[in-house]
Amino acid sequence: MRTIEWDDEKAVVKLVDQTLLPGEYKIVECTQLDELIEAIKRLAVRGAPALGAAGAFGVVLAFMMKEQDESKLKGEVEKLKKARPTAVNLSYGVNRAWQAAMRGRSIQEMSSYALEEAKRIAEEDVAVNKKIGEYGSALLEDGDVVLTHCNAGRLACVDWGTALGVIRTAIERGKRIEVIACETRPLNQGSRLTAWELVQDKIPVTLITDSMSAAVMREGKVNKVLVGADRVVKEGVFNKIGTYMHAVVAKVHGIPFYVAAPLSSFDTERSYKEVEIEERSPEELLFFGKKQIAPLDVKVYNPAFDFTPFELIEAVITEKGVIHDLKEDI
Amino acid sequence: MRTIEWDDEKAVVKLVDQTLLPGEYKIVECTQLDELIEAIKRLAVRGAPALGAAGAFGVVLAFMMKEQDESKLKGEVEKLKKARPTAVNLSYGVNRAWQAAMRGRSIQEMSSYALEEAKRIAEEDVAVNKKIGEYGSALLEDGDVVLTHCNAGRLACVDWGTALGVIRTAIERGKRIEVIACETRPLNQGSRLTAWELVQDKIPVTLITDSMSAAVMREGKVNKVLVGADRVVKEGVFNKIGTYMHAVVAKVHGIPFYVAAPLSSFDTERSYKEVEIEERSPEELLFFGKKQIAPLDVKVYNPAFDFTPFELIEAVITEKGVIHDLKEDI
Repeated sequence: MRTIEWDDEKAVVKLVDQTLLPGEYKIVECTQLDELIEAIKRLAVRGAPALGAAGAFGVVLAFMMKEQDESKLKGEVEKLKKARPTAVNLSYGVNRAWQAAMRGRSIQEMSSYALEEAKRIAEEDVAVNKKIGEYGSALLEDGDVVLTHCNAGRLACVDWGTALGVIRTAIERGKRIEVIACETRPLNQGSRLTAWELVQDKIPVTLITDSMSAAVMREGKVNKVLVGADRVVKEGVFNKIGTYMHAVVAKVHGIPFYVAAPLSSFDTERSYKEVEIEERSPEELLFFGKKQIAPLDVKVYNPAFDFTPFELIEAVITEKGVIHDLKEDI
Repeated sequence: MRTIEWDDEKAVVKLVDQTLLPGEYKIVECTQLDELIEAIKRLAVRGAPALGAAGAFGVVLAFMMKEQDESKLKGEVEKLKKARPTAVNLSYGVNRAWQAAMRGRSIQEMSSYALEEAKRIAEEDVAVNKKIGEYGSALLEDGDVVLTHCNAGRLACVDWGTALGVIRTAIERGKRIEVIACETRPLNQGSRLTAWELVQDKIPVTLITDSMSAAVMREGKVNKVLVGADRVVKEGVFNKIGTYMHAVVAKVHGIPFYVAAPLSSFDTERSYKEVEIEERSPEELLFFGKKQIAPLDVKVYNPAFDFTPFELIEAVITEKGVIHDLKEDI
């Protein structure tokens, strides 16, 4: 199945629980909005494009709640939007489904319009990723070794992927591409998700720690860097913590650094200064699962994202084309 | 007790098992050379200076073996030297104890000369670290926030520490210093050892992932970077994987990058091209303890060290002074 989809028969949101991969492939069903919000917060579903679809399906669940009045509904939807603050797609999906619902004259109709729109968002996401793949694959050359961070693959989207979608399309078109996946601390989306997706697809992939990226670049083992984005703003890109580090070292080593992102991740009226970077629990650095790996009373700084300015980015690959001249007034 | 020491009564090498920290503080006793080699390989004792002492004590254990002939002894000592190939101190400690032993006319005498020399190396290490602390602390200013990688502290040495020794001395002299400890994947010496040591000493420390270093530098949260070294060669420094990445991003952000290392880590006749970088087991990236975090059939690249050229290093702090003009012909 897709990473996230609506089940018409059961009237539930189904999603692949990404916290259990690669050990276990399990589908979670959310019948209540609270369950979906919880799934978003604990990263059972994550990745900017997937969060867009999740947000839209969440609005449907909101309209299906038993006790409804407008203020309660709005409150719930606000809670949904704030489940994760950095990726803009969550709000984007919520807003689109909400606006579609507003055309309805009854709760029934509202719910049905919201569902229609949510399904459209999911379909669009797949189509958009395929277009990103087409534009992006032209940037990759036969024999390239591409370093990526976090997971901007099928599991971050409804299907196909943004950064990994570009790689999939390039390979589909006969280019031999190898991937270096950075494990992406602290939650290891690189080792748990990206490596898993690529191994499933038999795409050659080598796993490294995040701290090795500069060393492998110095050794001449990387031709390009390609990542996704959680939000593209006026001056640059927010993405998983560590992205900025890879961008700096890529620049120093003369390696082009690309971002693949749908236009739904663009929020270019906004300055980076206005974006909240989600800080996650210290526990993510204090434990491996249940095993303690740091003194429990140590102070921890755990931002989930960082900001990479356009001057470090060679191009942003979108479904409408490749944007090369990245400036503040993009 | 010290990180590693000789127990005269029991005639054993005692060491703090660093694989169990911070959860458990346990002393391991090695009565046989094989046990010590095993302890070195599984990183129960690690850190270049501590390995110097471990190597020397290992020679004592070799002379205490039941069945001895010269070729077997030499073979064992070679095995000890090769237990870890990158840090030069292990060979340095082995060679010094071996040469001291050669003055003896009986196995008894050899063993006793080796032990005398090994104890001298351990004492010297503490004295050397204190001198490094004196010279290095002059480079730190009141209020500095110092980023460090891996563990170049008490646990990496016999006592006091190299990089963390500099911080300890600076604090002893009344400077307020805060530390940012990078967790240091894949074995988390930063979170398990550095954070633990500093919390024990009530030195303010904040734990981050390795991938956050560039972001915290961009945010203006770091004044200096200070790390240890496993080997200083003609053109630069070998240290824990990730060091090169921190050095590159420090340079880009105009933050001075310092290395603290005893002269016993210097091997400046040698070029970086001649040094073997230890590659460790893929399992270090595939599992957290027993929990699988990556597909088991993914290819893994796991070098334990990387090389940082002198042009990225502001100065190397030794027990004889601070070397600022780092050139190939240092």
